Amino acid sequence: MKLATMKDGTRDGRLAVVSRDLTRFTDASFLVPTLQAALDDWGRIAPHLEALAESLEHGSVPSQRFHEHDARSPLPRAYQWADGSAYVNHVELVRKARGAELPASFWTDPLMYQGGSDAFLDPREPIRVVDEAWGIDMEGEVAVIVDDVPMGATLAEARAAIRLVMLVNDVSLRGLIPAELAKGFGFFHGKPSTAFSPLAVTPDELGEAWDGGRLHLPLLVDLNGKPFGRANAGIDMTFDFPTLVAHAAKSRPLGAGTIVGSGTISNKLGDGPGKPVAEGGVGYACIAEIRMIETIEAGAPKTPFLRFGDTVRIEMRDGSGHSIFGAIEQSVERYSREG
Amino acid sequence: MKLATMKDGTRDGRLAVVSRDLTRFTDASFLVPTLQAALDDWGRIAPHLEALAESLEHGSVPSQRFHEHDARSPLPRAYQWADGSAYVNHVELVRKARGAELPASFWTDPLMYQGGSDAFLDPREPIRVVDEAWGIDMEGEVAVIVDDVPMGATLAEARAAIRLVMLVNDVSLRGLIPAELAKGFGFFHGKPSTAFSPLAVTPDELGEAWDGGRLHLPLLVDLNGKPFGRANAGIDMTFDFPTLVAHAAKSRPLGAGTIVGSGTISNKLGDGPGKPVAEGGVGYACIAEIRMIETIEAGAPKTPFLRFGDTVRIEMRDGSGHSIFGAIEQSVERYSREG
Repeated sequence: MKLATMKDGTRDGRLAVVSRDLTRFTDASFLVPTLQAALDDWGRIAPHLEALAESLEHGSVPSQRFHEHDARSPLPRAYQWADGSAYVNHVELVRKARGAELPASFWTDPLMYQGGSDAFLDPREPIRVVDEAWGIDMEGEVAVIVDDVPMGATLAEARAAIRLVMLVNDVSLRGLIPAELAKGFGFFHGKPSTAFSPLAVTPDELGEAWDGGRLHLPLLVDLNGKPFGRANAGIDMTFDFPTLVAHAAKSRPLGAGTIVGSGTISNKLGDGPGKPVAEGGVGYACIAEIRMIETIEAGAPKTPFLRFGDTVRIEMRDGSGHSIFGAIEQSVERYSREG
Repeated sequence: MKLATMKDGTRDGRLAVVSRDLTRFTDASFLVPTLQAALDDWGRIAPHLEALAESLEHGSVPSQRFHEHDARSPLPRAYQWADGSAYVNHVELVRKARGAELPASFWTDPLMYQGGSDAFLDPREPIRVVDEAWGIDMEGEVAVIVDDVPMGATLAEARAAIRLVMLVNDVSLRGLIPAELAKGFGFFHGKPSTAFSPLAVTPDELGEAWDGGRLHLPLLVDLNGKPFGRANAGIDMTFDFPTLVAHAAKSRPLGAGTIVGSGTISNKLGDGPGKPVAEGGVGYACIAEIRMIETIEAGAPKTPFLRFGDTVRIEMRDGSGHSIFGAIEQSVERYSREG
């Protein structure tokens, strides 16, 4: 089934079930008001949501036209957002661009940071930033929402706890990150509010593209209406989702509704259809990465970070070309206290 | 007023108002079910809770005996837990013990990390850890819970957004931290589930001890029933709470219910009643700090980290010796999947 959270003026929105083709939705809040409430009692609630989704497909429940811009992020706020960096190729490029070695342990021990989860952006909400010089970037990712995961969970338990899959724009402020990481405590200012796709879908909606650990489809990242990145989320993902979830649960349990992200998707040059091409790179999902490739190849980056007025679109399509999660589409705007 | 969240078998517990002397409580869930729900609509709800608190003091509402062990952490789970490191003396000692310089900017730019907030421990819940060798430590802190804070908030706005104050045990796994921080993404495994005091209180309950930015009282940290630390939370707090809150809101808004912590409380040697004394140190609130002092003074630490079976108690008393927040009291236990 495909779930969305509809805008209703409240902090947590209202749960809805959306048709497979994204054209219709039906209110699900009579069963449970919010997606978090559904996740809190998934075993009992999910079968009712599944039945409602089936009825929606058959046209046997009242429904309305679904507009992606009426949707919030599936969890407008969450109790945990833990973002991995599972595409080690990305991390290796970061290091290579600054002439540093990648520690061998990075191929076996996942990188993960604790993200802020109190105020996510809606999928169509502008990215508002105080200063363009902060180096605004998108990071296209896949994320899963899990059920309760016990401390010390096995890979099998972690895999079985995956309830929903969605897309992410992990907005990053590149200009703030180096000084912040140098302080030693990880990201804070450099990772402002994150946005998620309009829909969160159960793994069974992904068919063969989902193997229980990875999602084998290209992530379509467009910049100002032009193709920018086409990295395949199933390729070069060093750590699969069960590994990331189990990693997150090493020293503490994870509460139901915890979101675990893949990190920016990155394919090695030469993977997939080939090297970056003039009309849009193929292997990356953030600007930092093409800048690193430019630095490695030409000594300096030439692609600028996002500017006020730019628009980013992140989407994924199935084998028939149909959008699976709806699109994240965000303009970049100057933040001012007046609005 | 003083608020608590009573155990009721649900994920978020049930809101209660507790008498000033901590002896009685009255259910408040008929007004609003949980503390988060109260924070979501504080302007409307708080006056009703204040009126209920007044009635409880006058004995004009039904009440029950309050037992601290029936309380959850005031927010059993939260949408954000951002922990500062406001006592720069602590950070300076960390550096000094390993022979490193403290960057001058650390005195002007707060350190802050994003903590996990999906599953807090109850104030009397054991600290369960897989392996004693992970270096189990407490960190006694003060924390505030804020209302919505806009991105780019001024210090005055940050100060005005402080709704509640409580105590924290920011459990830390010292053995996991160095390797984790070396990876560059900050804490994850090294900061397992945190515990908070049974009560969260409005600033007006703190009288003159609260100056709007700092809480001028000693934090009583006991280890196995003996005094361990008596650091005064109002002394050597380089960054006050409004500064920490505004820092957290530099690049994104903070949602209502965000918890901002002070970091482990630390007084310089010679502050307050004097240097550490035989019956219990005076200036610290974690074991790591006495180990650093031992290292600086004698070349090596001698106080061990927490062991299975140890008990930590964290409390704060007013000028008359009455407990303000109730006590965090946690034993340390080996974690096993069987319970």
